[in-house]
Amino acid sequence: LFEPSSSAPNRLTVELGPRSYEIEVVSGLVREFGPFARRALERSWTGSSCRRALIVTDSNLADLSIPAPYQAALESVGIAAETAVVPPGEPSKSLAQVERLYDQLAARGADRHTLLVALGGGVVGDLAGFVAATFTRGLPLIMVPTSLLAQVDSSVGGKVGINHRSAKNLIGAFYQPLGVWIDTESLVTLPDREFRAGLAEVVKYGVIAIEPFFSFLEQNAGTILARSPQALEKVIFGSCGIKAHVVARDEREEGDLRATLNFGHTIAHAIETVAGYDGPFRHGEAVAIGMVAESRLAERLGWITSDVTDRLVRLLEGFGLPVKAPGLDLPSLKHAMSRDKKNRLGKIRFVLPRWIGQVELTDSPGEDDVQAILETL
Amino acid sequence: LFEPSSSAPNRLTVELGPRSYEIEVVSGLVREFGPFARRALERSWTGSSCRRALIVTDSNLADLSIPAPYQAALESVGIAAETAVVPPGEPSKSLAQVERLYDQLAARGADRHTLLVALGGGVVGDLAGFVAATFTRGLPLIMVPTSLLAQVDSSVGGKVGINHRSAKNLIGAFYQPLGVWIDTESLVTLPDREFRAGLAEVVKYGVIAIEPFFSFLEQNAGTILARSPQALEKVIFGSCGIKAHVVARDEREEGDLRATLNFGHTIAHAIETVAGYDGPFRHGEAVAIGMVAESRLAERLGWITSDVTDRLVRLLEGFGLPVKAPGLDLPSLKHAMSRDKKNRLGKIRFVLPRWIGQVELTDSPGEDDVQAILETL
Repeated sequence: LFEPSSSAPNRLTVELGPRSYEIEVVSGLVREFGPFARRALERSWTGSSCRRALIVTDSNLADLSIPAPYQAALESVGIAAETAVVPPGEPSKSLAQVERLYDQLAARGADRHTLLVALGGGVVGDLAGFVAATFTRGLPLIMVPTSLLAQVDSSVGGKVGINHRSAKNLIGAFYQPLGVWIDTESLVTLPDREFRAGLAEVVKYGVIAIEPFFSFLEQNAGTILARSPQALEKVIFGSCGIKAHVVARDEREEGDLRATLNFGHTIAHAIETVAGYDGPFRHGEAVAIGMVAESRLAERLGWITSDVTDRLVRLLEGFGLPVKAPGLDLPSLKHAMSRDKKNRLGKIRFVLPRWIGQVELTDSPGEDDVQAILETL
Repeated sequence: LFEPSSSAPNRLTVELGPRSYEIEVVSGLVREFGPFARRALERSWTGSSCRRALIVTDSNLADLSIPAPYQAALESVGIAAETAVVPPGEPSKSLAQVERLYDQLAARGADRHTLLVALGGGVVGDLAGFVAATFTRGLPLIMVPTSLLAQVDSSVGGKVGINHRSAKNLIGAFYQPLGVWIDTESLVTLPDREFRAGLAEVVKYGVIAIEPFFSFLEQNAGTILARSPQALEKVIFGSCGIKAHVVARDEREEGDLRATLNFGHTIAHAIETVAGYDGPFRHGEAVAIGMVAESRLAERLGWITSDVTDRLVRLLEGFGLPVKAPGLDLPSLKHAMSRDKKNRLGKIRFVLPRWIGQVELTDSPGEDDVQAILETL
């Protein structure tokens, strides 16, 4: 089950034909990043032409001098790298920050052979990825996710973008990186709450795709929370493997498959919209609450029995994640859900569990079902 | 030679595998636009889900009530359409206009099943195309180019984008439409200068790809300038056919083929940058001047003899196009050329003719060659 192969023990491939790319998972080997980037570039149409890079990161990481060794690793393979720093947090996913990065690239004379490295969490990846997708119609891009959430979710699959005041991630593109470099060591210093929030997406992969992965999480919750490198590697391989599998089959969410990654997210996005992007809930926490609520919705439709939801609640609570969000304004939540990108022909679409390991898209919940579920939040 | 086939006498296909699309050339058949749009949508992943459209146009066209029949044509196939109007001219290719269109789409609750129709010249196509490429990670897009330049060039091939203060088209994406609808009737009222400017790109196709097409232009210059519908149809089919052929083989300009479409453009873009986007030269006029200068550069390299350039000059002058741009600041021109997107490793790359019907990318011109050619402007 997504065990690394013996020939490349720390690599996974996202199979996208000529745009296939590798995810490499390491533990504290920053100097190897240079050769990794060079190989990824050489497999692309740019060949050996890249001589310059811009590393985009946030001020939290810059203050800890995290970019310096990555810059040195690039220099070691003949790529002169500079670093651009953006403020941390969701508000940086804005057109204003995009424009600032365009200006910095233009001022440096960047061209289609200038590598962009997104070094940071989901915000940095989404923002820098969008800039890479749209500067000179596409810069070579390498993702270096440093939060668990970014490592298991947003750095893989090519969704990049920024927020619009009316909805999260409303502006964006599908734009695949040339490679994803994951160093589990960056998780050692990750704040506890952020680490736990990332685990919500990990749990999601178990529910939507593979029951044994869910069981693995149940049986190894302790070592995972202790951030054992071996456990983290399995968590990341399992999550990225499932995501890569889905993305390879429905890259641009044109079928229903990729939408299954949004289990828990219909309600999670509504919670985030109503409570505020930088409000009381981190994204992963909203997803935990959303998964539980949507699992209860599946119960109402008779798809599952309550023991499935109970099992989900136990695992999430074991990971220290919230499973309720009382006190939010119901009409606002419903309005936000009516704007969900999965919706078709004005009907709210949900991804609901059939059992642990299988979910399905449906627009069958009626207004009363939605109302009842929101009341349990 | 790019004659329409008997089974579909007014259609050309841009072959891009699952993203292939049709260019339909008609003369005054706006009501057929509805079924065309419906067919194009049904061939795409969106199937029959589209119920709404936003037509983006400029105020010149809106003042002439051009959008109304297109809106009616969409209504006739069950697509409720509204129109968004942007100011005419190059300054609209800005992040500010992009943001305005994002706001309008968001306010209307647009989603991934909302069709965007770009009705207008190159500015509208590039701007609306960029918005389509980046709103909800991609809206279905249909191009309805109304200027000759847009019909033979910018509407085909998926290049969309906006300007940055430091360079034209610096921000953009490769994003293919679902279809291109060309009505030669829109050329009847096109101002003479704009029509002639479009012919510069038509001449370019003859030089870069097919000598007989160049000869056709020489032999039919009179009927073309008289805007005979039959002649215009051949001009558009020939041009779009060559462009579609190139785009199908090098969609994202990752090889050298698509770059050949930039014959004349290295110098043209420099002229436009120095003289101003809304300066004394229209894009096509700058391309005419650029082609002549780059042809002289090919002479200097010994690639061609002066009779090739003379033949090019005669055709361009026959179409009433300028072939010189005296008085521009040479250091500024050289600086602008050093920023060209075709450049590699700091060397200016040109597309130069080997003969009429064949061009080649080269970075062999030295500084003295470039200086000498700029002095002939």
